[in-house]
Amino acid sequence: MPASSSPRPIRWGMLGTGMIARLVAADIPLVPGAEIAAIGSRRQSTADSFAAEFDVPVAHDSYEAVVHDDNVDLVFIATPHSRHAADARLAIEAGKAVLCEKAFTVNATEARKMAAAARKAGVFLMEAMWTRFHPTMSRIRRMVKDGDLGSISSVVADISTLRPTDPNDRLFARDLAGGTLLDLGVYPIALAFDLFGPPDDVMSTAQMGPTEVDEQSAAIFSYDNGPQFIWHASFRADAGRGLTIAGAKGRLRNDRDWWKGRPFTWIQENGERSTVGTTPEGNGYQFEIAHVCNCLRDGRTESPVMPLDESIAIMETMDAMRAAWGLTYPNDDVRG
Amino acid sequence: MPASSSPRPIRWGMLGTGMIARLVAADIPLVPGAEIAAIGSRRQSTADSFAAEFDVPVAHDSYEAVVHDDNVDLVFIATPHSRHAADARLAIEAGKAVLCEKAFTVNATEARKMAAAARKAGVFLMEAMWTRFHPTMSRIRRMVKDGDLGSISSVVADISTLRPTDPNDRLFARDLAGGTLLDLGVYPIALAFDLFGPPDDVMSTAQMGPTEVDEQSAAIFSYDNGPQFIWHASFRADAGRGLTIAGAKGRLRNDRDWWKGRPFTWIQENGERSTVGTTPEGNGYQFEIAHVCNCLRDGRTESPVMPLDESIAIMETMDAMRAAWGLTYPNDDVRG
Repeated sequence: MPASSSPRPIRWGMLGTGMIARLVAADIPLVPGAEIAAIGSRRQSTADSFAAEFDVPVAHDSYEAVVHDDNVDLVFIATPHSRHAADARLAIEAGKAVLCEKAFTVNATEARKMAAAARKAGVFLMEAMWTRFHPTMSRIRRMVKDGDLGSISSVVADISTLRPTDPNDRLFARDLAGGTLLDLGVYPIALAFDLFGPPDDVMSTAQMGPTEVDEQSAAIFSYDNGPQFIWHASFRADAGRGLTIAGAKGRLRNDRDWWKGRPFTWIQENGERSTVGTTPEGNGYQFEIAHVCNCLRDGRTESPVMPLDESIAIMETMDAMRAAWGLTYPNDDVRG
Repeated sequence: MPASSSPRPIRWGMLGTGMIARLVAADIPLVPGAEIAAIGSRRQSTADSFAAEFDVPVAHDSYEAVVHDDNVDLVFIATPHSRHAADARLAIEAGKAVLCEKAFTVNATEARKMAAAARKAGVFLMEAMWTRFHPTMSRIRRMVKDGDLGSISSVVADISTLRPTDPNDRLFARDLAGGTLLDLGVYPIALAFDLFGPPDDVMSTAQMGPTEVDEQSAAIFSYDNGPQFIWHASFRADAGRGLTIAGAKGRLRNDRDWWKGRPFTWIQENGERSTVGTTPEGNGYQFEIAHVCNCLRDGRTESPVMPLDESIAIMETMDAMRAAWGLTYPNDDVRG
């Protein structure tokens, strides 16, 4: 097969070596035309061991080196939320395309600035809301839009895990924008936006832990003449991690880890049951990876599936929820 | 076996011939020492056919006749919510013990008056919150209280069914105190009270249908330093009717019709699964029926399991929710 018929390889440079970086790095080889060109960490030894494990040709001891690496087409930002805005700016200023982990930023002000910078520079920027790219979720979305479930009355989603309070964990650090909302709540919120758009009314509540971040949050999003979208996120227990989408013609139920793209059970009002979707191979990031590569090959600067204005609107919703709870992060005070 | 060793029969008189009356009448024969003595309807023909179907010796053409029937020890009120207060007063004034269907009344004012009347008359009065008497639910309650689940972080409950808007159905009639809250929401609310007592904070929302009653409602009950109790009730779709109780040591999950006392799956944090509870025979009302009979034999005027002050507090919570929604019923205006 002549080389010209292969897709142009999109070379990924990664910032950060944490869990998400590892999961994504493991899935990149599943995508034809995607490859990891470089890994960056603030410590050379950490970069080196990541490079060895995931067969990355170049290991940099700084994020700056990654964004300026000529062999990198796209910078994947897998640092903590509190660093996203600064790290994305680095990459955008270097003229690189950017895929930024969720939560996109710490607040809407940061998100708006990030989007403006990318648009000004004419570079691709997208929030890494991987759930949205799973074939299973695409099919669910189509079923909802096409009315296969009838008029949707409710969506109830749980995203929770047992994670005892640990002041040394970024998830419990207010300085690093820890808490359930930005780490877990963003998934059901993004799903609500995907299926129904911005809610007409939001009510929410949170329970703060000893480190002053939300260890548990819950919300009801209401849509006028539409569904109630009810979700719960927690570090205090594994509450099942299920999702139910109910409509007048039946319901879709995912019993476990719904945001990972695993199959749903479709239970029609007449009792008939069937399976929707398939379990993805690997960690399930390959669909997002392929989408980003295709966007770049197509010369896009924004994803039609996860557009920047939607990421900004999601951050606005989270800002409003935090305001109601009295929860602020240091980044909220940054001006200029 | 000499007759004296059998429990004294408790003779039930029923007001109303609707679905609940039928379900309870069918289960009374499952309880030794319980029997139906009389049925009352506003139409003789309706009472007669109920009597024929459930083998009831006497069929009255009025509620008054039932409460004054000397062969009736206990009056079971199975009329619509909007009639409960008036029908209970009839029975209490006749010196009869009363079991009153849920929702106990339309509002807390009615509930307080009903409790005061029963206490003054020295007669037994209880809200028919049958869920609380199921052996499965008693076991769940004990597991929660004993800390078998660890510290409870959340309870998520759904109670919903597809019931298209029908102005001729009492559930959609504002005059009859229709809507999801009093018919369905009362179950998760009573469960919240049973497990954790009155909530420290309540936020709720409802969607009104064309007949101006709540066709869908949802709430988050928060407990200071305790769980979030999240529930949803709907006539607009069957959303699964599941219940999850999550704690640091694992979770209890009921996949279907949790308030009917069917078994739960107990999933420990280590992944071990087991079944808690058994499916009751009949319709599952026999445990409540037996409890009420035992209370009367013991000379009680109030149930230790479903006390009147709790029924009043539940009505107060529902009053506050309706106030937030702007939903009133005609009974709310009654003074005196």
